[in-house]
Amino acid sequence: MITPNRDDELVFLPLGGSGEIGMNFNAYGYGPPDDRKWIVVDCGVLFGRETTSPGVDLIMPDIRFLAEQRENVIAIIATHAHEDHIGAIPHLWPMLRCPIYATPFTALLIEGKLEEAGLGDKVHPKRVPLSGKLALGPFGIEFMSITHSIPEPNALAIRTPLGVVVHTGDWKIDPEPLLGELTDQNALKKLGDEGVLALVCDSTNALVAGESGSEAKVRESLTNLIGTLKGRVAVTSFASNVARLETIAKAAKSHGRQVALVGRAMHKITDAARETGYLKGFPSVIDESEAAQLPPNRVLYLCTGSQGEPRAALARIADSNHPNVSLGKGDAVIFSSRVIPGNELAIFELHNKLAGLGVELLTSEDHFVHVSGHPCRDELAEMYRWTRPQISVPVHGELRHQSEHARLARSLQVPQAIVPQNGQLIRLAPGRAGVIDEVPSGRIHMDGRVLIEEGAGLARHRRALAFAGMIAITLVVDGKGRIAAAPSIIIEGIPEPVHDAIRAALDEPIRRHNPKRGDDLRENVRRAARRAAENAWGKKPVTRVEVIEI
Amino acid sequence: MITPNRDDELVFLPLGGSGEIGMNFNAYGYGPPDDRKWIVVDCGVLFGRETTSPGVDLIMPDIRFLAEQRENVIAIIATHAHEDHIGAIPHLWPMLRCPIYATPFTALLIEGKLEEAGLGDKVHPKRVPLSGKLALGPFGIEFMSITHSIPEPNALAIRTPLGVVVHTGDWKIDPEPLLGELTDQNALKKLGDEGVLALVCDSTNALVAGESGSEAKVRESLTNLIGTLKGRVAVTSFASNVARLETIAKAAKSHGRQVALVGRAMHKITDAARETGYLKGFPSVIDESEAAQLPPNRVLYLCTGSQGEPRAALARIADSNHPNVSLGKGDAVIFSSRVIPGNELAIFELHNKLAGLGVELLTSEDHFVHVSGHPCRDELAEMYRWTRPQISVPVHGELRHQSEHARLARSLQVPQAIVPQNGQLIRLAPGRAGVIDEVPSGRIHMDGRVLIEEGAGLARHRRALAFAGMIAITLVVDGKGRIAAAPSIIIEGIPEPVHDAIRAALDEPIRRHNPKRGDDLRENVRRAARRAAENAWGKKPVTRVEVIEI
Repeated sequence: MITPNRDDELVFLPLGGSGEIGMNFNAYGYGPPDDRKWIVVDCGVLFGRETTSPGVDLIMPDIRFLAEQRENVIAIIATHAHEDHIGAIPHLWPMLRCPIYATPFTALLIEGKLEEAGLGDKVHPKRVPLSGKLALGPFGIEFMSITHSIPEPNALAIRTPLGVVVHTGDWKIDPEPLLGELTDQNALKKLGDEGVLALVCDSTNALVAGESGSEAKVRESLTNLIGTLKGRVAVTSFASNVARLETIAKAAKSHGRQVALVGRAMHKITDAARETGYLKGFPSVIDESEAAQLPPNRVLYLCTGSQGEPRAALARIADSNHPNVSLGKGDAVIFSSRVIPGNELAIFELHNKLAGLGVELLTSEDHFVHVSGHPCRDELAEMYRWTRPQISVPVHGELRHQSEHARLARSLQVPQAIVPQNGQLIRLAPGRAGVIDEVPSGRIHMDGRVLIEEGAGLARHRRALAFAGMIAITLVVDGKGRIAAAPSIIIEGIPEPVHDAIRAALDEPIRRHNPKRGDDLRENVRRAARRAAENAWGKKPVTRVEVIEI
Repeated sequence: MITPNRDDELVFLPLGGSGEIGMNFNAYGYGPPDDRKWIVVDCGVLFGRETTSPGVDLIMPDIRFLAEQRENVIAIIATHAHEDHIGAIPHLWPMLRCPIYATPFTALLIEGKLEEAGLGDKVHPKRVPLSGKLALGPFGIEFMSITHSIPEPNALAIRTPLGVVVHTGDWKIDPEPLLGELTDQNALKKLGDEGVLALVCDSTNALVAGESGSEAKVRESLTNLIGTLKGRVAVTSFASNVARLETIAKAAKSHGRQVALVGRAMHKITDAARETGYLKGFPSVIDESEAAQLPPNRVLYLCTGSQGEPRAALARIADSNHPNVSLGKGDAVIFSSRVIPGNELAIFELHNKLAGLGVELLTSEDHFVHVSGHPCRDELAEMYRWTRPQISVPVHGELRHQSEHARLARSLQVPQAIVPQNGQLIRLAPGRAGVIDEVPSGRIHMDGRVLIEEGAGLARHRRALAFAGMIAITLVVDGKGRIAAAPSIIIEGIPEPVHDAIRAALDEPIRRHNPKRGDDLRENVRRAARRAAENAWGKKPVTRVEVIEI
C-alpha cells in the first residue's frame, strides 16, 4: 500500500440512495481535490409513482458531476443484482464508459440488461469470483459475502492509503440463507481488528427492533402452511429471492403439487440462477397449460405481481384474464412478500379482486410467510461490533431511517456519525470527517423513452394538469392585430358546467381589444379564462393562449 | 308492532361503504316493492386521492335512486360524527330534504356543517338522547351506546314488523373508553334473546386477530412515555378522538407541561365536546404564542396533521413555517395515530422532514401510543355471541374485509352471510335473504366546487393528462376549406425534444390536404401528431384539434 501524498483525500459522494430507499449510486474518490480518481458502487433505479411523478417509469441519479470527468472514473462495482442497485447501468453507463465489475450472478443479469439496451457489444461486465479482490488505481477492493434476499450479495472492503471503508451493500444476518454463502463474519471482524475508518451501511430497517429472521424459518412455515391448503395454490414473491422460490417449489413438491412459473421475471431469474450454478435441487416445473389440467390440489403457481403491478401475472389472474391460470372459490393465494410503501392501495385492490373471486388470502399480516432482507437494529449493532468503525455513514434510507441509524451508531459509541444527502461530498480522511462541498446532483426521469431532469418540472406540470385540467385558446388576428375570427377554445379535464363560463368570459377581452392601444390581448384572454374557471369551479386550470396572424 | 302485509318486504340497500372504508350510506326500506318507506343510516364522504381521482377533494355516493322518491325517505340517522358517516350531509341533504336525527354531540357537529354550507336555516338535526328511541313510519329505532373512537358512538336496533336488524355503526369493545358510555351489552344481548334477523356490522378490522385494546391502556402508556421526554413535545392524533385528547392533556399536566392546541380541528372538536358536557376534567390550555415562551420541558403541543395533510399544523411545523411553533434537536413528536392506507408516503415525507430538523419520532410502530376504534376478530365474535343473528351483513370495508368477515360469521354458525356491494338491493325478509335487484349507484366527485358523476370520467381524463400531457392544435381554413395560416400548436407536459417531432409531423397532412377530396383534415392532423409523439417518446398524449374558418 502506497503512502498518501500531502494533498490526498478520501471522499464519499452519494448521488443516489441517501434520502430514499432505491436509486443507489455511491462514489468514492481518492487523490488531491483537483485530480481525484473515482469508483462507483452500485447504479440503481427508483420506480416512478403516479402521485409524485405521473408518467415516469424510472428515476435515476443525475451523475453529470462524474460524467464530466469520466476519464477519472475507474469502475462501476455492483454489490448485488437488485434493480435499485443495477437498474440504471444501461442508462447511465454511456455517460461513464468504464469497466463494470460484479460477481457471476449479478454480472449475468447486468449483461442481459446491457444487451436489451443495445449495449451488448460495447461493454461486458467483468466477473469477479466470490470473495474476489480488485486493484483499481488507488483503491483495493475486496468482495465479502454477506446475506440478503438475492443470490450473491456482497459487502465491499475498500482499501485506500488513508484507510479502509466497509461498504455493506444490502444485507442482513441470516444464519440459514438456504442458498449461497453465509455472511463472512471473519472477514468483517478481521477488518475491525485492523481498524475500519468508515462503515457505509444499509439503513432500511433502522426503525425496526430485533432481527430480520431467517429464510430457513420461512421455509418451515410456508411448507406447513401449503400443507393445510386443499384447492389451487398461487404464491407470489419477489422473483429475485431465489432461495424463496426454491422454498416454495420444495414445499409444493413435498405436498404432491407440481409447480408452474407464471410471469416473465420468474423464468428470467430462475434461468440466471441455474446458469450460475444455483437451484440444483429445484423441482422440475410444468408449464401453465399443463398445470390447468391437473386437479386443484396437485398444482402450485409461482407468480409475479406481489406489489399489485397491473401487468404482472397475479393482476391478470385477479382480473380473470390470464390465458392459462384461473382461480376461484376454494383456492388460495399466499403473498410471500412485504408491502413496499406506496404500493398499499394497488396491493389492496388486488386483494379485493381476489376476494371477489372467492379466493382465500394469506399474507404476512397473519402468517409467517416472509422475512425482510435488511438488517434490523440488533443486526446493525452486531455489524458495528464486528467492524468498530471511526465513522458511521448511514445510506440506503430516507432521512427518518438514516437519522435513527446515526442515533443507534452513536449509542454504540461510534465516535462520529454523518447522515449524508445526495450530492454532498464528504471527506472521510484525513482529519475529522465532514461535508466539504456540494456537487450538482438530482434526479433524472425516464419519461416514456426520454431522459429528463426532474428539475425541469415536466412531471410537476403534468400534476397541475391532473389537478385542474387545461384550457388552450387560439386567437386569430389580421395584419393590423384586429380579431379576425371567433377563438378556438379547447378545454380538457374541466367539468362541463364550467366550460360555458370560460367561453363567455372571453367575450369581454376580445370585444374590448384595441390593437392601437397596444394592450396585451394574449394575457388579457388568459387571465379572463382562468378567473372564470376559478369563479365557477374553485380551481385554476393550466391556461395557454396562442395568436395566429393571417 | 303492526302485522306485516302480504307484499311487505324488509330490504337493505348500501349506496356507500360496501367495497370501501368510508362514504358510509346505508338505506333500509320497508313495504311493498312499489311503495317502500326508507330510512337512511349515515351519510358520509370518502377523501379523494391524487392517484385515482386527482383534483377531487371529496367522494360521495350517488343517491339518485332515493332522491327520485324522496317523499318516501323518512329520515337520515347518523350513528356518530366521523366524516365518513356525516360528511356528505351538507351536500346530499338537499336531494332528500328529510329530518336528520343524531345524539347531541353528533347533532352539534352536523349543525355546524349545515351552517357552513348555508343550510343552517333549512334544517336542524333533531337531538336524540343517548339510548333514545324513535318511531319513524314502519321503523322503530333504538339507539344503543357502543364504544368507538369519538364521543357518542351508537349502534341501532331497527325494529320492523318483519324482524329486528342490529346496525352496529363503527364500534369496538372498549372496557375503559375513558369518556362516555360503555358498550350497552345488555341491550344487545336482550335483542339476541328476542331474536335478531340481521346484523349489519363494521368489517374494518376483520383481518386482525385478537382485540383492538383500550383507551385506558393507551393513557397509561402515553403518560409514561411523555414522562421520559426532556425537550418540547408535540403529539398528533385524530382530533375527533376526544378521549385521546384528554389523555394527552392529562399526561402533559402530570409531567408539568402546559398544553397548546395547534390546528383548527383541535379547537373545533374540543369546543363541541365541552358544549355537550364532555371534557370537564380537561386541563386549561394556553395559546401557541404563550407556549413558545415556556421552557421546552414545560410545553406540549397537541397538533392536527397525523396523516401528513399538507396544510395541517404538523406539516407546517415540519416545514419550519408555522407562525408560532417550531421544533428542533432535542424535541420529540409522538404520532398517537395509525397510518390510513394510501397516506403512507405523505406521512413518511412528514417524518423525513421532522427527522431532518433533528426531532425524535415516536410512532405506534415502536411504542404503544394508539389503539384502533374498530372491532378485531375476537370482538366481532363477541358481538355475534351477543346478538346471534340469522343473517350477517358485513359492511364498512373493502371486499377483502367483508369476505373475511363473512367467513368468520359462517364459522360462528350464523346461518347466512351476505357480502353486499353498493347498489345491491338485499331482501332481508320474508324468506331467504338475497340480492333481489340492483339500483343505480356509483360515486359523485366533489371536484373543486362542482359535483360530478365519477362515471363521467373527468378524473380519468385528467389522469391521462398526467400520464402523457396534451397537444391542442388549431387549424385555420378559408371558406373553401383551404389552409389559410400556419397552425397553432399548444403542447403541455411533453418533453421538449418531442415538440419538434410533433410540429414537423403536421406538415404532411396539412400540405396534402385537399378540401375537394373531402378528406378529414382534423382527424389526419390528430393522428399525425399522436403518432409522432409515440415514435419520439413512446407515449400518446391527449390530442385535440379544432378548425377555425375565416
